[in-house]
Amino acid sequence: MAFAAVDVIRAKRDKKELTAGEIRQIIAAYTAGTVADEQMSALLMAILLNGMTADEISEWTGAMIASGDRMDLSTVGRPTVDKHSTGGVGDKISLPLAPLVAACGAAVPQLSGRGLGHTGGTLDKMESIPGWTATLSPEQMVAQLRDVGAVICAASDDLAPADRKLYALRDVTGTVESIPMIAASIMSKKIAEGTASLVLDVKVGSGAFMKDATSAAQLARTMVRLGTDAGVTTSALLTDMSEPLGLAVGNAIEVAESVEVLAGGGPADVVELTIALAREMVKLAGLDVDPAEVLASGAAMDVWRTMVRAQGGDPDAPLPTPHEVEVVTAPAGGVVAKMDAMAVGMASWRLGAGRARKEDPVQAAAGVVCLVKPGDEIREGAPLFELHTDTPDRIPAAAAELGTAVDIVPAGRPVPRRAIVLNTIRG
Amino acid sequence: MAFAAVDVIRAKRDKKELTAGEIRQIIAAYTAGTVADEQMSALLMAILLNGMTADEISEWTGAMIASGDRMDLSTVGRPTVDKHSTGGVGDKISLPLAPLVAACGAAVPQLSGRGLGHTGGTLDKMESIPGWTATLSPEQMVAQLRDVGAVICAASDDLAPADRKLYALRDVTGTVESIPMIAASIMSKKIAEGTASLVLDVKVGSGAFMKDATSAAQLARTMVRLGTDAGVTTSALLTDMSEPLGLAVGNAIEVAESVEVLAGGGPADVVELTIALAREMVKLAGLDVDPAEVLASGAAMDVWRTMVRAQGGDPDAPLPTPHEVEVVTAPAGGVVAKMDAMAVGMASWRLGAGRARKEDPVQAAAGVVCLVKPGDEIREGAPLFELHTDTPDRIPAAAAELGTAVDIVPAGRPVPRRAIVLNTIRG
Repeated sequence: MAFAAVDVIRAKRDKKELTAGEIRQIIAAYTAGTVADEQMSALLMAILLNGMTADEISEWTGAMIASGDRMDLSTVGRPTVDKHSTGGVGDKISLPLAPLVAACGAAVPQLSGRGLGHTGGTLDKMESIPGWTATLSPEQMVAQLRDVGAVICAASDDLAPADRKLYALRDVTGTVESIPMIAASIMSKKIAEGTASLVLDVKVGSGAFMKDATSAAQLARTMVRLGTDAGVTTSALLTDMSEPLGLAVGNAIEVAESVEVLAGGGPADVVELTIALAREMVKLAGLDVDPAEVLASGAAMDVWRTMVRAQGGDPDAPLPTPHEVEVVTAPAGGVVAKMDAMAVGMASWRLGAGRARKEDPVQAAAGVVCLVKPGDEIREGAPLFELHTDTPDRIPAAAAELGTAVDIVPAGRPVPRRAIVLNTIRG
Repeated sequence: MAFAAVDVIRAKRDKKELTAGEIRQIIAAYTAGTVADEQMSALLMAILLNGMTADEISEWTGAMIASGDRMDLSTVGRPTVDKHSTGGVGDKISLPLAPLVAACGAAVPQLSGRGLGHTGGTLDKMESIPGWTATLSPEQMVAQLRDVGAVICAASDDLAPADRKLYALRDVTGTVESIPMIAASIMSKKIAEGTASLVLDVKVGSGAFMKDATSAAQLARTMVRLGTDAGVTTSALLTDMSEPLGLAVGNAIEVAESVEVLAGGGPADVVELTIALAREMVKLAGLDVDPAEVLASGAAMDVWRTMVRAQGGDPDAPLPTPHEVEVVTAPAGGVVAKMDAMAVGMASWRLGAGRARKEDPVQAAAGVVCLVKPGDEIREGAPLFELHTDTPDRIPAAAAELGTAVDIVPAGRPVPRRAIVLNTIRG
């Protein structure tokens, strides 16, 4: 009997487990265009509501990898290890992390994306560096990994094309929020990229996709299993995303903050998470070095500068500055008890740092600088945020987003320090 | 904020009740083509799996009616009453019923469909009458209701166009089997048709869409409520569809069996159901007549002949006969304990009486004649079925469908007579 998409849809609708053959066929047919968007979206909704077994997720991921090329990084001459974050507000960690881990002796093939919605994209941030390009051929990427040890670039169109087509469909059909689909989407790209090991930074909290630790842990375990089963040594850190990472949320201002970290400074939380992820990556890569010492030595900064130059960027060029800066002040004095990551992310998005549709441009200089962190004591009227934008008419909407972003409690009340790394899940 | 289809999908996905405005907007936008098929199919799957409240179903039905015209039958000068069957094997009841109820004094505006899959369509059956046409303008339909009292014809394209577009989408996306959607689909057309009252024949059993009495009753109650809320006096009969209705399953052979009923003969089960439905229709129409007496008087036959002629048909012309007839015989002697409606329906479909895709033609002369009924005592080798077709190469597949259609038990074992009408649900 011929393959019929509607039978696969009905099976998942009726809570039956799909066979490996059904999954391979429907993904291949969808990529080839012989299964229609309206059939795939009905199947995606059935998967979102009825779930998938571990075997189904594994087959789905495999089918997405098989829809395109799988890179071969065996010639780079160093252990390869990558990191993927599920996305957070102020999450510029890839920028200091990739050169740091390269300076430790590994090769870091950071295939990254652009931002959509309130979380920024690593490529958008890097593109605020004058001259820097995200586009490398696979050969250029391998050569840079061999020569420099770190690369941050866009994924080629030949890497898991089924995932790209499916993601665009999920975006318009309300079927993004499925743990099996999120796990398969991330892991198909990372496995196809050819890295030998992988550390996942799974964010939890208001500014993250996963709002609670239970679903974040479920996503992390699903991805660790997918990586392990595909021969990629994988572990996951569950990390806090209830408040922004660092002080800068935007594009150029996040590059500047990353360079501070590489220079031995920077906000404590950014440094702490960079070191924690680097330690896990170095461990998976089988290297016996302490990333904290390597960071302090300045070697990571050297790799950063070489990496930026290798992709046409000028590490010494001034970064773009905004046409307009507005300051938001404290409505009352006291202690900052909380700063909501989602509200800050939305404000940055409204200022032009992010995009509503994937065709939209972003403003390199836009974003929010947090002038306080939870635990800080402030007086009434003290500056809380700087709003940066090239389009001043965006300021009122951004200021409105920040209206409830900060909780101020009476001075003297203790504010517990948050833990950044909540849990580690290994294969 | 502008209307966004993805927000409506997400709401239903997350088990929220859709508002009247959301439902009206998404149906209108889908009919206009500004909501994409892939968005609507994701919503349909979410509805299938998460259900709809009574209010949502009512709004959905209203939105489908509002997508087109609503007919006005106030000028026909008789009480209007229609019947709708959810579809069964050998279900030719509309053919004798419409003229019978017209002969009782009502006007019966039977807008009917063509068959798809194992259940036949009333129009396919009527079209085996030489010269008869299913296509009438609304004005012709009203005139015929006034002059003849009965019409069996195709629905105009302007009647609930959203339902037609949605049904085609449901068919290819595995989203047909949803009680709210089935109820809304049927009732939007029947309410838009302008009938004052309506009797639903909801089939239960192997040959029916609803395999069990619980879901059939749920569908019936949902539809009765929709009709009542829209001002259409509605009741539903739950009727048995575990075995075929009558002996003939096909097109021309079902017309011939219907004419037998109108002539005072015909199989007992067809007569029983025709009278039961006619009694309920006459009652809803407020008429004080006994359909059994009217049938016996020959008045229903007179209306039938006038009705066929009014639509170009010749009631005296010989009906098409098949090129090939093959007989299936009993593998053993005994008593026929069961005859499976689905198997007989599938055999008739395989012989060419039905269609696999809606563009396919049907064979007027194809079908299955049952030569026995449950309770009949037979000897080994006795004829059980006649297979009629114009394409003999279809016979083996049809015979295979019938391989397990009949249960034969040792002679003398009692076979209980089935009840046709299982239950009646009124508004």
